[in-house]
Formats: sequence, structure tokens, C-alpha cells
Amino acid sequence: MADVIILGSMALDTIETPFGKVERVLGGSASYAAYAASFFAKPAIISVVGEDFPEKEKNVLLERGIVLDGVKREGKTFHWEGFYEFDMNEAKTIKTELNALASFTPAVPENYKGIQHIFLANIDPSAQLEVIKKLKNPGLIVMDTMNFWIEHKKKEVLEVMKHAAILLLNDGEARQMFQTTNLVKAAKQVLALGPEAAIIKKGEHGALLFTKGHHFNAPGYPLEEVKDPTGCGDSFGGALIGCLAKAKKHDQATLRKAMVYASAIASFNAEDFSLQRLKTLAWKDIEQRYQEFVSMRNF
Amino acid sequence: MADVIILGSMALDTIETPFGKVERVLGGSASYAAYAASFFAKPAIISVVGEDFPEKEKNVLLERGIVLDGVKREGKTFHWEGFYEFDMNEAKTIKTELNALASFTPAVPENYKGIQHIFLANIDPSAQLEVIKKLKNPGLIVMDTMNFWIEHKKKEVLEVMKHAAILLLNDGEARQMFQTTNLVKAAKQVLALGPEAAIIKKGEHGALLFTKGHHFNAPGYPLEEVKDPTGCGDSFGGALIGCLAKAKKHDQATLRKAMVYASAIASFNAEDFSLQRLKTLAWKDIEQRYQEFVSMRNF
Repeated sequence: MADVIILGSMALDTIETPFGKVERVLGGSASYAAYAASFFAKPAIISVVGEDFPEKEKNVLLERGIVLDGVKREGKTFHWEGFYEFDMNEAKTIKTELNALASFTPAVPENYKGIQHIFLANIDPSAQLEVIKKLKNPGLIVMDTMNFWIEHKKKEVLEVMKHAAILLLNDGEARQMFQTTNLVKAAKQVLALGPEAAIIKKGEHGALLFTKGHHFNAPGYPLEEVKDPTGCGDSFGGALIGCLAKAKKHDQATLRKAMVYASAIASFNAEDFSLQRLKTLAWKDIEQRYQEFVSMRNF
Repeated sequence: MADVIILGSMALDTIETPFGKVERVLGGSASYAAYAASFFAKPAIISVVGEDFPEKEKNVLLERGIVLDGVKREGKTFHWEGFYEFDMNEAKTIKTELNALASFTPAVPENYKGIQHIFLANIDPSAQLEVIKKLKNPGLIVMDTMNFWIEHKKKEVLEVMKHAAILLLNDGEARQMFQTTNLVKAAKQVLALGPEAAIIKKGEHGALLFTKGHHFNAPGYPLEEVKDPTGCGDSFGGALIGCLAKAKKHDQATLRKAMVYASAIASFNAEDFSLQRLKTLAWKDIEQRYQEFVSMRNF
């Protein structure tokens, strides 16, 4: 049986960065998150793809042991087209074709219902709420979102937060959501709204963990070549929930270690387009990078 | 005898932030750096003030045991007026009156000449070169600079770098100087130009240390209230050289510890205007914050 549910999008992405261009490659928050989680646990996806979704990409996920029983198939696959400029910090969208995602109502297969670790990856918060409603016993919920939902569906985002134990946000989203430039203040507001932990992802600057009375600072990995940052936040979240599912706990020490593993996976993800780099990863690579994180913050 | 030379500006600053306004208060890179260094070592300043420089401010420095024999007195004191907007990340300049600083040629008093630890804080690189030339045996040189000099006197900045063992830059300056957004690449270029260590200061995101074959990531302190960030970079540099002078070495382990003490001092500095917070600091406050840094990066 799988031990992590991942709700999110599955997409075919067309991406251009200063290092190249790829067309209609595997993407979407659920794809990245599930692949990342699979290094630590057995993920089961809830999502939707179109009739055009390539068998090849489906097999990439199945071969990692990822359960796809909760993936609907109808119409055309969600397609995102975007590019990154020289600074690689922000994706610029050229085109978003929601397609099958537009009318998507997630279903939770029977064989998913006992799973205790849930990652609500970036997707419409109404879909996140639907999954929470349909789960008999939702267990530990980790929630991600993005600026678009904070802007357009803030009420629903706040509603999902009430159910989440851990909220992931990037720094820009945290500032946007709580209208403060100060991340400490933003995190305090998260904790007041329900979650017991707020994780603020800062890209190359690492990630911060705020819990009541504790603060942890996970460093960014000093990458010399960032080829494509798409999916870094999703793979961070997937690796995080995977680690927590593997440990079967989420105390302070476990959360901290999970964040470092998540940072390691996300740093690998940026080294190539789509899931290319994750596909070539061996466990020893992950362990080696984890040790680099240990050594680069030792004093 | 003093054990650290600090070359830099001494100023009267007029600063407005969302938290208040102060007029003609003690500022300048040498004032901040020397005060910060004084927690760890005995600093001696090389700088210039005007006839209008208040006795009161001079006494603030003398009472910390800071040597002022190398501080000239002529004309009017350098005056900087600026403000910070809501995000507090970048100082906006309203007015810069160089005054005595405009024609300043630094002199090195005889009693400074055996001092082995030199901090060339932010000031015209021609003044930095002048001090290097006048020192008999310059020992360990730590160098800081700013965007203005990189833009207008890059050749001189590069010349100073040849003599520096450790270069301090903020992230924006590193990107500007080496025309890359990638800090790892920028740091590699620093190391190819002479310095054995490049320290990149990233404000709230902490600081990075690059040496041949090693990388260290010092976290930022999660400050809930930033009242005035003026002088944080200078106090970071001052505390750093102070720690190195105290340790009488600058191996990897010493550099890392020094960076954390420097981050602690800089974080205190942001808590109030001018040197107000540093003036109230006791050693136990510094040790306590150092321990907070230890705990927030432990995993």
C-alpha cells in the first residue's frame, strides 16, 4: 500500500531558460512531488491528465512505484508554457491551458483512504478542500499553494490552512499573504491560523522552519549551474512528506532532517529540465549531498 | 596597543525608516566597524571628521577603548541623508555631503604600524590603496567595498583585492562586479583574483563563505523588528576582523565562528538607529545570540 497521498497537477510543460528549451515535457506539481517523495516512501497521486498524456511519461512514474489509481484521464492534459530570464528567479508565463484541470474534481480511491500522510501540492484550493472532505481520516496534512490562489481564492486557501499541520510557502507568497515584508511576522500569522509549522522556501537562500518556540534555518545549496528551476518547490514538498512518512513522526528533529533532504532533492531538480535529473539520482547521490549540507553549516 | 586597524568613513547620518527618524547621529563605516570590533579586540581607526564632529560621539568611541590617533579633523564631517521604504532592503540616498571626506588622504600613525589585522571598510579604494602602501607589514587584510566604487573605480577596487586575504561583498555587489547572477560563480572569480576567501553578505538571508574547496553558509537571524539596517554590513565586517584578531588565526574553523559572531552583532545593530543597540550590548547578550545561531541550524 502507498503511504503518501499527493494531490496536485500533472502537466506537459514547454520551458525555455538561458540553457535551452524543452517542449511538452512531464511537469506539474504532483509529478515533481511524487517523484521526489518516491525516494523515501510510496506515493499515490490524485490528479488528472488528458487522453494525450504520453504512455512513456506514465511509465516513468509507474516504474518508480508511484500509484496512479487516483489519476483521472479526460480531455487534454494541462499545458504550461513559460520561460526564465537570466536571473532564473521567476518563471514568466507565456500560456496556461488548463484543459482537463479546469473542470477537475478530485476523487479519492478506496485504496487511498487509510493513508496517513497527505501532501496537498499546488492546485486550486477548492480541489484541496475536496480531498480533505473525502478522506476518512486525513492524518498529517502538508499544504502548498501559490501566489495565483492567494490572490484569487484567499478565503479557500485560509480554509485549507485550518486543516494543515504544515504550510509551505515561498517567501514572496508569505509576504503577499500577510502583507508584511517580515518573514518572522508572516510565519507567526501562519501559526495563529492553525498549522503547527510554517516552512518558508527561499530558493537559493534556503528554507526557514517556524514552529512555536523554535526556528530552523536550512541553507540553500550553492549550485553553480541552475538549468531549470521549475518544480523545485514541488520536489521540496514531495521529498519532505516522503521523509515524514518514512519516519512516521514529525517532531522538530525529524522536520529539520526532512527539510535538509528536501533541499537536497530540490537542488538536484534544478540541475536539468523536467524530471531529468531526478530520474538519474541514486540514493548514494542524495546521501552525499545531505553530507555536504552537514559540512557547509558546521561551525 | 591596538590590534586591529579600521579604515573607513566617520559620518553624521540623517536617517528615516518606517520606524522613525534620527538626525545627524553617529554613522560611517569605520564607526560601526570599530564599535563592533571592540567586543573582540582593540580597534584603531583611520578616518577623518570635521570640526563640527560632536565631542559626545568621540567619547562614545574612546570609552570603548577605540584608538582615534589616526582620525584627522578638518572642515565639516561627512553627512549622509537617506531613507528606507517599507521593505527595508535598500537605502535610498537623499543627500551625500562628502565634506572632509572629499579630500581625505589617510595617514598611518607610527603606533599603528605593527598592527597585523586590517579592515579596509567601505571607502574610496584610493584611500584603501594608500593605507596598504603606508603600512610597513600589512598582515591580514579584510576588504569591504560598495556598488558606487565598483561602478566608478573598478580598476582600483581590483587593485585593492590583490592585497586582500578576505573580500566582503553583498550579494548585489558580487553580481554587479562579475556580471553574473550566480553567487558561486562570482565567488570563484573573487578567489581567482587574489583573496583566499570571499564572504558574500545577503542581509536577512545570512552570509556565505567561499574558500578553495569549502563552502560555509551562515544563517540570517530571524528578526521580527528591523528598525534601521544602516551599518549592518560594516558591523559585520568589524566583528569579523575583531574575532580574527582575537583568535590570531583565520583557518576555516575560525572564519566560520567569526562569521556567526559577525552575524550576531549585525543582527543586534538592526534593532535600533545608529549605534544605539550596540551601545547597550553586554557580552552575555552576544553569547546568547551565538547560541541561538547554533540551535537554529542544528539538524
